[in-house]
Amino acid sequence: MKYIISILSLIFLLANSSLAADYGTGALMVVVERENGAIMVIDSAQDHKVLGEVSGLGVLHHASISFSRDGRYAYVVSRDGFLSKVDLLKLKIVSKLKVGESAIGLAVTQDGKHIAISNYKPGNIVIVSDKTFKIVKTIPADKSKTVGLVDAPGNLLVVSLMDADQTWVIDAGKPDFPVIRKYKNIGEKPYDALLTPDGRYYLVGLFHSPWITMIDLLKPEGFTKIPLPRPEKDSHKKPVLKIPHLEGWIMAGDYLYAPMVGGSGLAVIDKKTWKAKKFIELKGHPIFAMARPDMRQIWTNYVLGDNHDKVEVIDVQSQKVIKTLTPGNKIFHIGFAPKGGTIYISSYGDSKLLIYDTSTFELIKEIPIKKPSGIFCTNRSSIFGL
Amino acid sequence: MKYIISILSLIFLLANSSLAADYGTGALMVVVERENGAIMVIDSAQDHKVLGEVSGLGVLHHASISFSRDGRYAYVVSRDGFLSKVDLLKLKIVSKLKVGESAIGLAVTQDGKHIAISNYKPGNIVIVSDKTFKIVKTIPADKSKTVGLVDAPGNLLVVSLMDADQTWVIDAGKPDFPVIRKYKNIGEKPYDALLTPDGRYYLVGLFHSPWITMIDLLKPEGFTKIPLPRPEKDSHKKPVLKIPHLEGWIMAGDYLYAPMVGGSGLAVIDKKTWKAKKFIELKGHPIFAMARPDMRQIWTNYVLGDNHDKVEVIDVQSQKVIKTLTPGNKIFHIGFAPKGGTIYISSYGDSKLLIYDTSTFELIKEIPIKKPSGIFCTNRSSIFGL
Repeated sequence: MKYIISILSLIFLLANSSLAADYGTGALMVVVERENGAIMVIDSAQDHKVLGEVSGLGVLHHASISFSRDGRYAYVVSRDGFLSKVDLLKLKIVSKLKVGESAIGLAVTQDGKHIAISNYKPGNIVIVSDKTFKIVKTIPADKSKTVGLVDAPGNLLVVSLMDADQTWVIDAGKPDFPVIRKYKNIGEKPYDALLTPDGRYYLVGLFHSPWITMIDLLKPEGFTKIPLPRPEKDSHKKPVLKIPHLEGWIMAGDYLYAPMVGGSGLAVIDKKTWKAKKFIELKGHPIFAMARPDMRQIWTNYVLGDNHDKVEVIDVQSQKVIKTLTPGNKIFHIGFAPKGGTIYISSYGDSKLLIYDTSTFELIKEIPIKKPSGIFCTNRSSIFGL
Repeated sequence: MKYIISILSLIFLLANSSLAADYGTGALMVVVERENGAIMVIDSAQDHKVLGEVSGLGVLHHASISFSRDGRYAYVVSRDGFLSKVDLLKLKIVSKLKVGESAIGLAVTQDGKHIAISNYKPGNIVIVSDKTFKIVKTIPADKSKTVGLVDAPGNLLVVSLMDADQTWVIDAGKPDFPVIRKYKNIGEKPYDALLTPDGRYYLVGLFHSPWITMIDLLKPEGFTKIPLPRPEKDSHKKPVLKIPHLEGWIMAGDYLYAPMVGGSGLAVIDKKTWKAKKFIELKGHPIFAMARPDMRQIWTNYVLGDNHDKVEVIDVQSQKVIKTLTPGNKIFHIGFAPKGGTIYISSYGDSKLLIYDTSTFELIKEIPIKKPSGIFCTNRSSIFGL
């Protein structure tokens, strides 16, 4: 009897301890299975090995993921308002919380202690303690949808109010999370925003104004309007078919590369004058335009229209398209592995993930996955705004 | 008997599996114990908890550390020529290899498949396969000491030859690791180098020439000489007491911040003209000058002279010293945790590690550690040149 108890307790201990996985968390690729409420976890440092899947994450249409500082936990916010904390070592959900009716984005504070969620409905920002996984603060946003939520240096959060044409700055280092600054009349209907990786410039995309609003967080007294180039004269009459995702906007060298609303290319905007220097013609309106970590290539995808199956590669030096790939139907997202030697591509239409060498453009690996969309690498954990 | 065997085998399994640690590897701080041949591993994401120590690493005077892509393994090169692969999850050495008589630096290739070591003696570059942990190639360097070895985009390695006044570029993507480019007469006695984080500019420090040599890896046909400012007229007569570590040179905004040879401050060099715009007077000749990840502060330390116990903080916007700390005797190194909310400081003289909040300058934690020197964070694994 004694022996049996010993054996049982050992089995129990063993079962628990063996759950601790045998891999690092610095280069994991987390891929959203859009219709499955699940994610797949792949280790880009172990020949792109599939480590497993985690389901039960809610409605993952337009899902967003941020990571704990150590890359161990993925915070997943679902469209139906659930925040899940997923342990990427044990491959299971360790906490789950309803944070709204319709959530759109999230950010982990610089100190790693809180997760902030931006909600469309009710229009607010919700702050969750990582330790207790309870809501510690709800900040109502003048009945507006909130968008473009990012963490910024000084333990700040920056967020925009879609229906109130404002940007707010929240101090997440103070216990009551005060809104310390409100920028009003920044432009009509902000729909998304990004923070440059140095945590300095917050760029806001606007639905109904022909500019991007830029806030320099080091010069908090005002903001700059960067005129958005429109290559075709009547393009302002075209409806915005799909929102260009601002996370994909790029500062490479002296230029900002911005997808044009109503256009089908990429505008090269000079950072000194904020004027468009050139247009790079593309096969469609890019949904994402992402720079390889060495800033020598920009990769784009389209989703809608005839070129939903295409990925184009722009050489930054020559500002020309140097490669067009046809990886599969409905390319929803693209994401570089650390140091950019490889890129992951989600083919939603063909239910597969494709991994390419970015130098040779060779297909390295193809992984079957149910309707994949967003791709997020754990090395985002140490970059502001991601 | 059967039971006992079962129990023993379970204990065995348990002992093995429990070695797999229960933490992520994205924000580990690895600190060299200079006189101990050891490292201490601290998790900056778990309230700076000490995870353990690993010893048996050889002579760690001027030790250098790089990481595997996933942050799981630390590659440590010792002055007496041993390369050790340390598993940061199991906290033990998994492989060890003699790679030279006197080694000085190392780099992990972009694809993560090889570790390159630069040797003073014999003057060469040695390439080790991560998989087999055997030397796969030795590249003799014209009998010169090799310095400033970095990995670069395109799976390249860049290294300088101290006694031959050259910089070489090696293609680590080809099976025979050919030297594909040789820059000759770059200046007298290169002693160290750095690569900018975008992997584009390789900057070489020179012992006997009053300039820095800059190679633009995208324009391989030549190089630029950046004149080194010398504020005092007779400073060229002063001996170089201590080599300024080039890893600490900083590009922040439009300026390069460079420690002056023979001077006691930091030169602010305009990147457009490569001319010194200003000198920031400091308490000594900085051994390291490191930018906080948000580029808003530069932290310096001195080691030699009266101010061996000081750390100064420069505000990048105003280009002024805003804080002087006295953390302990003989400050050997400083290193930011991811996102820069905290900084680790090694007091070699007092055998302690100090962790400060970089906003409030408050001391957060003090960790006893035997004669600490270099501090390396695992998030370096996804940055070129580190």
